[in-house]
Amino acid sequence: MTMKRKVAILGATGAVGQRFIQLLQDHPWFQIEVLAASERSAGKKYQDACPWLMETELPKEIAEMPVVNADVESVEQAGAAVDLVFSSLPGDLAGSVEAQFGALYPVFSKASAHRMDKDVPLLIPEINPEHIEMVKMQQKLRGWKGFITTDPNCSTIQLAITLKPLMQFGLKQVMASTMQALSGAGYPGVPSLEIIDNVIPFISGEEEKMETEALKILGKYNGYTVQNAEFQLSASCNRVNVCDGHLESVFIKLEQDPSMEEIEEVFTKFQGAPQRLKLPSAPVNPIVVRHEKNRPQPRFDRDAGNGMSVVVGRIRKDPIMTFKYMCLGHNTLRGAAGGGILSAELYVSKGLA
Amino acid sequence: MTMKRKVAILGATGAVGQRFIQLLQDHPWFQIEVLAASERSAGKKYQDACPWLMETELPKEIAEMPVVNADVESVEQAGAAVDLVFSSLPGDLAGSVEAQFGALYPVFSKASAHRMDKDVPLLIPEINPEHIEMVKMQQKLRGWKGFITTDPNCSTIQLAITLKPLMQFGLKQVMASTMQALSGAGYPGVPSLEIIDNVIPFISGEEEKMETEALKILGKYNGYTVQNAEFQLSASCNRVNVCDGHLESVFIKLEQDPSMEEIEEVFTKFQGAPQRLKLPSAPVNPIVVRHEKNRPQPRFDRDAGNGMSVVVGRIRKDPIMTFKYMCLGHNTLRGAAGGGILSAELYVSKGLA
Amino acid sequence: MTMKRKVAILGATGAVGQRFIQLLQDHPWFQIEVLAASERSAGKKYQDACPWLMETELPKEIAEMPVVNADVESVEQAGAAVDLVFSSLPGDLAGSVEAQFGALYPVFSKASAHRMDKDVPLLIPEINPEHIEMVKMQQKLRGWKGFITTDPNCSTIQLAITLKPLMQFGLKQVMASTMQALSGAGYPGVPSLEIIDNVIPFISGEEEKMETEALKILGKYNGYTVQNAEFQLSASCNRVNVCDGHLESVFIKLEQDPSMEEIEEVFTKFQGAPQRLKLPSAPVNPIVVRHEKNRPQPRFDRDAGNGMSVVVGRIRKDPIMTFKYMCLGHNTLRGAAGGGILSAELYVSKGLA
Amino acid sequence: MTMKRKVAILGATGAVGQRFIQLLQDHPWFQIEVLAASERSAGKKYQDACPWLMETELPKEIAEMPVVNADVESVEQAGAAVDLVFSSLPGDLAGSVEAQFGALYPVFSKASAHRMDKDVPLLIPEINPEHIEMVKMQQKLRGWKGFITTDPNCSTIQLAITLKPLMQFGLKQVMASTMQALSGAGYPGVPSLEIIDNVIPFISGEEEKMETEALKILGKYNGYTVQNAEFQLSASCNRVNVCDGHLESVFIKLEQDPSMEEIEEVFTKFQGAPQRLKLPSAPVNPIVVRHEKNRPQPRFDRDAGNGMSVVVGRIRKDPIMTFKYMCLGHNTLRGAAGGGILSAELYVSKGLA
Repeated sequence: MTMKRKVAILGATGAVGQRFIQLLQDHPWFQIEVLAASERSAGKKYQDACPWLMETELPKEIAEMPVVNADVESVEQAGAAVDLVFSSLPGDLAGSVEAQFGALYPVFSKASAHRMDKDVPLLIPEINPEHIEMVKMQQKLRGWKGFITTDPNCSTIQLAITLKPLMQFGLKQVMASTMQALSGAGYPGVPSLEIIDNVIPFISGEEEKMETEALKILGKYNGYTVQNAEFQLSASCNRVNVCDGHLESVFIKLEQDPSMEEIEEVFTKFQGAPQRLKLPSAPVNPIVVRHEKNRPQPRFDRDAGNGMSVVVGRIRKDPIMTFKYMCLGHNTLRGAAGGGILSAELYVSKGLA
Repeated sequence: MTMKRKVAILGATGAVGQRFIQLLQDHPWFQIEVLAASERSAGKKYQDACPWLMETELPKEIAEMPVVNADVESVEQAGAAVDLVFSSLPGDLAGSVEAQFGALYPVFSKASAHRMDKDVPLLIPEINPEHIEMVKMQQKLRGWKGFITTDPNCSTIQLAITLKPLMQFGLKQVMASTMQALSGAGYPGVPSLEIIDNVIPFISGEEEKMETEALKILGKYNGYTVQNAEFQLSASCNRVNVCDGHLESVFIKLEQDPSMEEIEEVFTKFQGAPQRLKLPSAPVNPIVVRHEKNRPQPRFDRDAGNGMSVVVGRIRKDPIMTFKYMCLGHNTLRGAAGGGILSAELYVSKGLA
Repeated sequence: MTMKRKVAILGATGAVGQRFIQLLQDHPWFQIEVLAASERSAGKKYQDACPWLMETELPKEIAEMPVVNADVESVEQAGAAVDLVFSSLPGDLAGSVEAQFGALYPVFSKASAHRMDKDVPLLIPEINPEHIEMVKMQQKLRGWKGFITTDPNCSTIQLAITLKPLMQFGLKQVMASTMQALSGAGYPGVPSLEIIDNVIPFISGEEEKMETEALKILGKYNGYTVQNAEFQLSASCNRVNVCDGHLESVFIKLEQDPSMEEIEEVFTKFQGAPQRLKLPSAPVNPIVVRHEKNRPQPRFDRDAGNGMSVVVGRIRKDPIMTFKYMCLGHNTLRGAAGGGILSAELYVSKGLA
Repeated sequence: MTMKRKVAILGATGAVGQRFIQLLQDHPWFQIEVLAASERSAGKKYQDACPWLMETELPKEIAEMPVVNADVESVEQAGAAVDLVFSSLPGDLAGSVEAQFGALYPVFSKASAHRMDKDVPLLIPEINPEHIEMVKMQQKLRGWKGFITTDPNCSTIQLAITLKPLMQFGLKQVMASTMQALSGAGYPGVPSLEIIDNVIPFISGEEEKMETEALKILGKYNGYTVQNAEFQLSASCNRVNVCDGHLESVFIKLEQDPSMEEIEEVFTKFQGAPQRLKLPSAPVNPIVVRHEKNRPQPRFDRDAGNGMSVVVGRIRKDPIMTFKYMCLGHNTLRGAAGGGILSAELYVSKGLA
């Protein structure tokens, strides 16, 4: 892997696009070749196309790069030769634009448009790395040179990572009430007048995504299709006045009755393909368990494992279900751009991109 | 009721004590006669004893009143003749001090010390007004002239009010994840450095209170003791960066399978003794149902019914339980001082205080 | 004044427009006849045209009113006969639309477009009520049946009110550093991701408005033109994470050297035409002086005088200038809709509208 | 410098003490030997003595260290041989305790107790490194083996750094209105109920400190005493809802009339002894100038130069003074622990500690 792969970022001006740019600085395998966004931004220098919202400086060479329109023709004119594409396009655009790119390039998408397509992987590298085989079928079915692979919704990712090690105890029911960060709504996102001294108990489409996506992610790929996992999931989603880091209050019903120590142990020991393959963006521990009585907390725990670990705490018996706990993940790192890059690393390491 | 009853407030300098003062201005039945607090405040003018945290002005005559020590002797020296006592003393003090006063006066307590005592009512006037009969037994058993009656924990009150009308459908299980306001922690309470850009997923003792108190409140008093209600309740409690107003995400399992319309109807039509008796602090509607997809919200709904109504929204089917909904209550009005005053009004109207 | 005047609100869906609606409920002199806004809202019911951001309920009859396009023809079709017009249109629209209405109706504008026009009053009723005579000249010059009169920028209004009583001491220099509320930026306004855990030290055009408008407001109308007041003003404007209420740190240089007591006295005793005329929206005290060492504060003082009083505190000697103080005003009440209604009341009471 | 100097931290459990611990991890010259605090904490393990408020993890070996009482005897029993002492004791304790230690050890103090003592340096290494010579006189006068040297107040430090390069233009007057972060008030500090949706326009003693300290820092040490600088300074101090980073709105009057470009140039080129000596904690640029119209902002700029640079923006002509600008500094890094360590590095490099 002596030569870095050249990447295009679709939706480069949005909140997740900015995270992609931030994380791909000095990435050992990938280098940014093209920044693409909607017509409104196309033709501008990147620094003039959007306010930079990261707390690190906008890299100078990125600042000067032109933003091109998010279509294949514009991107090909802009970049000598793109090897793969990250997409964080808004939902309404993503469907057709990603298909256009997928015909030619590996597309790693954070958009929801294709997540539930039968031939499209919904990937969390620690959980279902074998699902990436689906893209071969996808290429055959669609007659594509490239493919589309997707990452789940941010609040689903962190929850699903904690559910995976619980499967061995016979996972039956999951109830989650979320407290989600502002950055999950993108930019400009939530008006400050709506959230100051307030909580908004609704995020459009979020509960439906959580209730369907987790079943596919934790399902089995049999070479033809994914058979959904068989547990039930109910979500209630809230927006709170926090910058980054989704916190979830989770209640779990298991078939077996493990002790709290056994549960903690499976969380702590959980490892997946990214750890075994030592992928560049893989956290040492996908799940970190904290023992303080009042953790995890968004401001103090969101950066665990460079924002790629999910932090679990308050594991305790439940009067109705088997047990309850809190889990926290960084929604624009593990939950978005970081997760997307980890997915791409998996494909590359498996020779599929 | 031509003469107003003279009241003493124990814990008058705290956040709930200040609400009592605010709400008792111009109350038709009660007038403040004595302000009592801990030794640290005793001997000072009220305005020098604590920072006034209400958004209305501190009444001039209250500002000048002396704060006396919270013991019977000091209170009796201060007020010519006290008729009843409101207590919002901190938990560690409340137990013995309230017993001292209860021997002589009707004590309406917001503290948790005596809530689970077998001969002490845990009262929400709309739900279990018949429990007030317990104080007669209490007086006999303890040989007291006065009595102690208690109000539940703030996060319990609003939840219990919404549970009452659901009992008719055979309430089996309740799971609640709360997002609770800063004022619930009193003053100085939560340090700003802990809550800015953050959520704290722990409130000491809160989950235990919710899980036990609701069963007593909704239980039946058979003349000797309260038989707890038989449903199960699980709570997960969080502190969010909101000034006032607890928001709860609730999942409910019922024996029957009513439609969402039937559920909404029982919420909307719910009335209790305070409404029938037209008590001065009773809201017209104990439960207000909102239909917007993103309500209730703390900042916009906490003052419904002068802060005495519980606001419900997002009533929807649940994939696991029977249905789910959000409920919101003003934690220092309905959830504390307002609830305490409503309780006192019920006792007065029934001739018990 | 037996019949209420019928009013149209231009820009009715914005944050200030909503305040106009809120304040005109039950106004003794005015009733809302037409709600007008941009094309995007025209044709919708009011409740569907914008999210209601006030903490009081949206009145039912307003919710059902149609929003019409903000042009004379649409407004005249909608309202049988409009007597006067309140405008809180965005700056780019306001210029031409207000002129169109001004030809026919008295227009009370919160927009900045016409504030510095030579024949247009820039009115604060307590300060320069005699400036309203300018509209007679305006009508003659422009050949209009109606007129345009304007209210200053929100951060200017509260500062200018405190400057007026200082004129008697020979006002020479004013330096103000502001901490302005989110609602001053309208809706959706400031994205929450920009202001959480942050201050934004820039508000477009705000410093220029403060530095020019105050001189006109405090200037003298000689029957032909306004001669600007002769003091100097420098402003530095910041946006802080506060819902409502602009706070300003002010340094003042006077020719004379009054004591701090004399300064406090002129603040406290200050009265203007609205108080003498007992206009419905006039606060008893245009300026309220607080003596606590840490006041005024936005959350606790913004509603003084129903949000129509300016609250002053921390009057103290300055090592460089003559003295310094803090002042606070409610930016959407006194600083916008409330100020606009008070202006209209002045015109009505003087027989000019 | 092959052996690291062993340090004791007095006030190790406070907000600044925690920063000292965080910054001294892996410091090339210093290693933590003793953690001392008030009696309340003495005898506990560090992790049990205070909640850890830094966003990095509490180092394991620190967590297990015992906290000793902040007196010489206890410290000497705890640490084999301490070389120097950092103090962030609260003001009321600092005076006598620091003197006790100063008799024996070099004491680097963040407390205000000794700042204005005639024989005690008030040091900002970039500004007045020659003031460190005062400790020789101090040792002689007091008959001490050690000494006390102090760092200024946090809001003074960042302002003074920007004033230093302006001295060459004949600095005459400085007016500053501050917006200060919550961490400046220590822990628990500002109650969340006081600052949510609010600004507090008062910080006890802060304006007096700013108005006096800057004159000593920028004064000349003539071998006997410091002759204060001769400009005038007025401050107005406010607390805002920001975690870290003080922002100041500054108005400056100069004798000369440099262009805005010349001013920017002297800011940008400013360097001091720490840069020349390449001290470990010295930022490359003590002052960073930003050109965006809306910077500096606390959340985005406080970490410039690892929190050791002061960020300046919005340099512009002023209608009254010569010019105005905004400046921002990280109050617990440059403004407290980081500044203290930089001071110690200067003494060490000069052979005085």
